[in-house]
Amino acid sequence: MEFDLIDAIRARVNIARDDVVLGVGDDAALTRLAPGRQLVACADTLVAGVHFPLDTAPEDLGWKSLAVNLSDLAAMGAAAAWALLALTLPRADVRFVESFADGFAALARVHEVALVGGDTTQGSLSITVTALGMVPAGEALTRGGARVGDGVFVTGTLGDAGGALHQLQNHATPASTLLARLNRPEPRLAEGMALRGIANACIDVSDGLLADLGHVCAASSVGAELDAEALPLSPALTAAFDPATCRELALTGGDDYELCFTAPVSRETEIAAKLEPAGCRATRIGRIVAGAGMRVLDAHGNEIEMTRAGWEHFSR
Amino acid sequence: MEFDLIDAIRARVNIARDDVVLGVGDDAALTRLAPGRQLVACADTLVAGVHFPLDTAPEDLGWKSLAVNLSDLAAMGAAAAWALLALTLPRADVRFVESFADGFAALARVHEVALVGGDTTQGSLSITVTALGMVPAGEALTRGGARVGDGVFVTGTLGDAGGALHQLQNHATPASTLLARLNRPEPRLAEGMALRGIANACIDVSDGLLADLGHVCAASSVGAELDAEALPLSPALTAAFDPATCRELALTGGDDYELCFTAPVSRETEIAAKLEPAGCRATRIGRIVAGAGMRVLDAHGNEIEMTRAGWEHFSR
Repeated sequence: MEFDLIDAIRARVNIARDDVVLGVGDDAALTRLAPGRQLVACADTLVAGVHFPLDTAPEDLGWKSLAVNLSDLAAMGAAAAWALLALTLPRADVRFVESFADGFAALARVHEVALVGGDTTQGSLSITVTALGMVPAGEALTRGGARVGDGVFVTGTLGDAGGALHQLQNHATPASTLLARLNRPEPRLAEGMALRGIANACIDVSDGLLADLGHVCAASSVGAELDAEALPLSPALTAAFDPATCRELALTGGDDYELCFTAPVSRETEIAAKLEPAGCRATRIGRIVAGAGMRVLDAHGNEIEMTRAGWEHFSR
Repeated sequence: MEFDLIDAIRARVNIARDDVVLGVGDDAALTRLAPGRQLVACADTLVAGVHFPLDTAPEDLGWKSLAVNLSDLAAMGAAAAWALLALTLPRADVRFVESFADGFAALARVHEVALVGGDTTQGSLSITVTALGMVPAGEALTRGGARVGDGVFVTGTLGDAGGALHQLQNHATPASTLLARLNRPEPRLAEGMALRGIANACIDVSDGLLADLGHVCAASSVGAELDAEALPLSPALTAAFDPATCRELALTGGDDYELCFTAPVSRETEIAAKLEPAGCRATRIGRIVAGAGMRVLDAHGNEIEMTRAGWEHFSR
């Protein structure tokens, strides 16, 4: 089945880049790194029934399978460049593949990502994308650089994708803006690049803010305090859920694909200016403290007990 | 389940490389390309029940999932450098993962490949490895350079893995040398690098000689003639099968992971000398001709009709 499907994908995902010496069609792809750049590489898998509902539209899957990987590049402050797609399908369903490729291509075009290779195989539906990008040597953002006294910031709004998933699971119809956050996440590549030289640490929020900020704290050997009142919530989320649920979704909902970063509070104005061209706000939601672990504080500075430690995949 | 498994894998696949700036544990890996090098990238998936029998030992799976990808780098004349592993498992089976990682690490050590990232997810057993390597700019071997008059060469022997699979499917016990060719293929990286500047075209034999040489012919707009009597067969294969079956296995059996390349016949002595340090012979098995398609000739120069066009996965 392999060849027809690859042709269907190639025909639709045809973003050209000057730095691709050889794309799909040989044993491997050949590409050129720009001078002074380091390679940034990641690979994430989406499994049907685990990472997305079985009835997710193939266009959305194509978009999302690339988005979750570009989000990892964004968290490093990298520019996206190339991708490899390993698509496993129960049968050679050309219409599925064409729709999938259309969704993949729609996001690939936004960030000028060339599809340079991959594999199509037969089996249970799952998608592994490898995203490759570049960052100026020494300028990558990592999880390990958070410093005591840093502010904790997050781009955009939190909890929207988790809210949509919550509603789907309860057979409610999510608002279209919430559903779009779940199915068509926007990787924050421009924001990540803008934060180079400013953010001390950065991660993308894929498993939930507490879980992901927890990785930053562990890698940086610090703790964090979050102000529950400061969590940025969309109007669509606050219209759909009570305040306590909104807070829980913002803290533990997965699939937000916003960037959570730490930076000196003194640079807050500069951060806003740098992010403005990307059309994205960052909100300061807390601070890095000595010690370990995370505390969430209410408006009076009292700790709120959390019942969930992070996002649970909807079916396990 | 993700974190325990990743730790189990990291502990076992701990090949260090100076060019890894940041390995497993952040949002993405950071690596450095050597000066004057181009990046070579490929990703292949192995699905349980399609690409390997369900009772394949996890050590062999770990080896093979890396080997099939390193073989693609070999076919480009590249040096292997880094890998990402996306492992999907029905359940968090630490013993399986440890054995898998041991097999992966055994091959990674041979070729000094650092595991720099990936993902572990829950689902039907399948493995996608992304292999990343480097080649001096402009020196990669490709499928498209075969010229009329070139000799067609192949490294090692053909049909051994196909023979082992054939026996397993018929509930026979393959000789250990044949079984090793199926479960522990040796990617021909040193050979591919030695062929830079000599071979005009190159591919690895994964789907069967006729199928893969067919890709070279199509990409190069040429045809090929193969001499059936020249096909290199191992003593273990000729001991296990009659001559006609040996020939069919050599022409259409998959999973050989030898290199098939074309080069001027005048350079045959040089080829032998270049490959000798790798401990590997190349055999001239035919020639590139004008036109399209492939013909297999007997000792009298008469065409042999083939009934199969390539390797069929053992279960579809």
